[in-house]
Amino acid sequence: MNLHFISFIIGWILNFQGIFLLVPSLVALYYRETSGFAFVITAVICLVTGFLLTRKKPANKAFYAKEGFISVAACWIALSITGALPFVFSGEIPSIVDALFETVSGFTTTGASILNDVEAMSKCCIFWRSFTHWLGGMGVLVFVLCVLPLAGGDNMHIMKAESPGPSVNKLVPRVRDTAMILYGIYIVLTIIEGILLLIFGMSGFDAITTSLATAGTGGFGIKHDSMGSYSVAIQNIVAVFMMIFGVNFSIYFLILVRKPKQILKSDELRAYLGIVVLATVAIGINSREYFASIWSAFQQAFFQVTSIMTTTGFATTDFNLWPSFSKTILVLLMFTGACAGSTSGGIKVSRIVIMFKDIKNEIASFIHPRSVQTLRMDDKKVSNEVVRTVKTFFMLYLVIFATSLLLISFENFSFETNFTAVSATLNNVGPGLDGVGPMESFAKFNPFSKIILIFDMLAGRLELFPMLILFSPGIWRGSRKRIFSK
Amino acid sequence: MNLHFISFIIGWILNFQGIFLLVPSLVALYYRETSGFAFVITAVICLVTGFLLTRKKPANKAFYAKEGFISVAACWIALSITGALPFVFSGEIPSIVDALFETVSGFTTTGASILNDVEAMSKCCIFWRSFTHWLGGMGVLVFVLCVLPLAGGDNMHIMKAESPGPSVNKLVPRVRDTAMILYGIYIVLTIIEGILLLIFGMSGFDAITTSLATAGTGGFGIKHDSMGSYSVAIQNIVAVFMMIFGVNFSIYFLILVRKPKQILKSDELRAYLGIVVLATVAIGINSREYFASIWSAFQQAFFQVTSIMTTTGFATTDFNLWPSFSKTILVLLMFTGACAGSTSGGIKVSRIVIMFKDIKNEIASFIHPRSVQTLRMDDKKVSNEVVRTVKTFFMLYLVIFATSLLLISFENFSFETNFTAVSATLNNVGPGLDGVGPMESFAKFNPFSKIILIFDMLAGRLELFPMLILFSPGIWRGSRKRIFSK
Repeated sequence: MNLHFISFIIGWILNFQGIFLLVPSLVALYYRETSGFAFVITAVICLVTGFLLTRKKPANKAFYAKEGFISVAACWIALSITGALPFVFSGEIPSIVDALFETVSGFTTTGASILNDVEAMSKCCIFWRSFTHWLGGMGVLVFVLCVLPLAGGDNMHIMKAESPGPSVNKLVPRVRDTAMILYGIYIVLTIIEGILLLIFGMSGFDAITTSLATAGTGGFGIKHDSMGSYSVAIQNIVAVFMMIFGVNFSIYFLILVRKPKQILKSDELRAYLGIVVLATVAIGINSREYFASIWSAFQQAFFQVTSIMTTTGFATTDFNLWPSFSKTILVLLMFTGACAGSTSGGIKVSRIVIMFKDIKNEIASFIHPRSVQTLRMDDKKVSNEVVRTVKTFFMLYLVIFATSLLLISFENFSFETNFTAVSATLNNVGPGLDGVGPMESFAKFNPFSKIILIFDMLAGRLELFPMLILFSPGIWRGSRKRIFSK
Repeated sequence: MNLHFISFIIGWILNFQGIFLLVPSLVALYYRETSGFAFVITAVICLVTGFLLTRKKPANKAFYAKEGFISVAACWIALSITGALPFVFSGEIPSIVDALFETVSGFTTTGASILNDVEAMSKCCIFWRSFTHWLGGMGVLVFVLCVLPLAGGDNMHIMKAESPGPSVNKLVPRVRDTAMILYGIYIVLTIIEGILLLIFGMSGFDAITTSLATAGTGGFGIKHDSMGSYSVAIQNIVAVFMMIFGVNFSIYFLILVRKPKQILKSDELRAYLGIVVLATVAIGINSREYFASIWSAFQQAFFQVTSIMTTTGFATTDFNLWPSFSKTILVLLMFTGACAGSTSGGIKVSRIVIMFKDIKNEIASFIHPRSVQTLRMDDKKVSNEVVRTVKTFFMLYLVIFATSLLLISFENFSFETNFTAVSATLNNVGPGLDGVGPMESFAKFNPFSKIILIFDMLAGRLELFPMLILFSPGIWRGSRKRIFSK
């Protein structure tokens, strides 16, 4: 295990975190809020620690998949802890576990909150919550890769471990260029949304925080009723942008380089848009009587479907009160998530597509035992290794889900509350149903349950394996063995 | 597709069904119940249809895996329909869908009932319900294989499709001998339980029906409070026998042929017994205050754990009222089920063990990308094909589960009701929680939902693939292709 290199990367992450923390400090300066000092102090702590860790470049450049997983998991934990400090220092969230929950929920773009009254917070803290969504959405390490040539060709391991989806496409030969293109698209789309929200009457602060939270498919609301009090036009803009940020970013790259034919080949995109349309229509019809008109029902259904499926988690209405069928659709969409390579969480549509194709193949191989079945996506063969890992992903998912459900059931909440609390965090959605419904908060859980849910948010964002590998005893045994074999 | 052979097998199944139906007719004769005529009429219908279908032996003896799946699925549908007729003819369950639900629940050893007052039924109908459990438990086709040399060596396909678990062991070289050994053990264990229940004070009728329902891990109660009104001694006998019938029958064969060393090697047995002990202790401690003493809590916990984990579904108490943690354990045990090669339902402990070992291997292959991981069970290598199929099983399971959950949510029951209704039927458990709790019934669902749940019970009992293959369009396309290629 190349521990020196891993601590070097953590150091750089802390340096960047120090710079990120200055942005809410500026917000505090503008609004003359004393909470700004908490951000400045934390920034200094990050920069000093980061400076110490990055002083000496590591001589050993060996960096394999395992180092990739470990550094990504460790960096995210470092980001979460330092990101939580300003809430504690300023006294706005005095409990350390609560502050950590809120920050992890931010960076992992979950949007589940322990706050019962978000509007009582200072502007700089509200801004920081939304900003963590934006940073975590595309990945902080991917951002670092844009500006810093860390480890040459082996950066792919970092990108693989931090990017969502069963496989990562390099858009262009160099990892660093790929990272820059992704961030370029991300920034441009965020700005377009912000401008549109301004045009349709949002205030500057609301437009900036809302577009940051939409871009990361995070979902922290800045009002206590989330998006409920904004105009229908604004809700529709947010809904469309949630849908846009749920698309694989390589699709936008294909648009930029004018290869529309390849876009049409995307099985995942077609499945994603198909599910959005179907779910909207089904919920619109099913919840018809809860709204003034059928159009209003469809508008609300569209907002809620894009919000839940992209795992953003904004709400315009209390869907806890909707009929069972509509609620069950939303619960299932929590699990599917949106496209791989987007900023969304959940299992991802591409894994669902692979799952269905694999079942079809397995049945075909029962019927024709001697035939060889290959799994194709986007007109290309999917390697057996990817299929195997996707299937193991599902099983690991079940294990983590079941274990979390059991551990948080020590508190006597309803089955619906516990079940959707785990799916809302493991899928990085935010709100669930019943006790964690869109108009409720996660404050009711005890610290033990909150720590379980914090683990779930991190595991969900990093797609299960990195967090498990970090805590796997085998990884440290392996490192000892290597020393002996040398 | 060898349709002639398949209809020949269905014919034999109907002949046997005709004979089985005479047993409740005798019960009716003993108790002088007019409902007995319904059984006699149905028996005649079965025997006549069976005679017509088996008149001519099929010339074409080609019988592959696909014919195995199709005949098993078709036979189970034939058994369910003819088994439901006596309920309808006698007027004791006038609705056809309800009668079918009750019969499928019987044969699949689910034990979910649409009856609100089982004690109002005639003895012959109550006996038939318990008898279907016993017949379905070990498999009706396996029974037919004992007495009838159907298709020579290719019977293995039938046994594979009907027997629970990821892989079937032939205990002895010949399939027919294996089937006879299994049924021999099954009959002896059932008789021992019946005698013990008689000794401890159960009436003859109660002892027979209870031991039939325990042996098949079915769970139809003959009292409206299931096993609640029996003595603690009787409850303990039933609990121990539920645990016994949840063990892979090949373990008993190993005891008979005196190979105890091989028993100790069984990963599945150790995991199964370990889970039973752990869950009993955890629930006993957690639900301590609901009982008069800690011993009473452990006794009730042991009964409920063995009942749910072996997917029997007897109840002694309304565990719906237990604390969340205990209920969550029971919900998770619904899914694990007991051992492969037992009469229990659910996913099976062996698949769970394979799942954990596969996750471990996958993580190891991330850490050491160039190492080759093999999966071992009981000290033997598990073939990649079995691992692949087990993983696909989990995914198909998720798809069927999610689809069923969505389809029954049209009715406005609680999420807990719907979720546990699907898991209670797909895992062949019987009772769930909330609206389908142990003191409730499935009568509240509408016919559409009942049909979905009927499908789930059959799919669960036959381990998903046969039912899906029967309804798969590819199977009929394939058969056409074969005609052309000849």
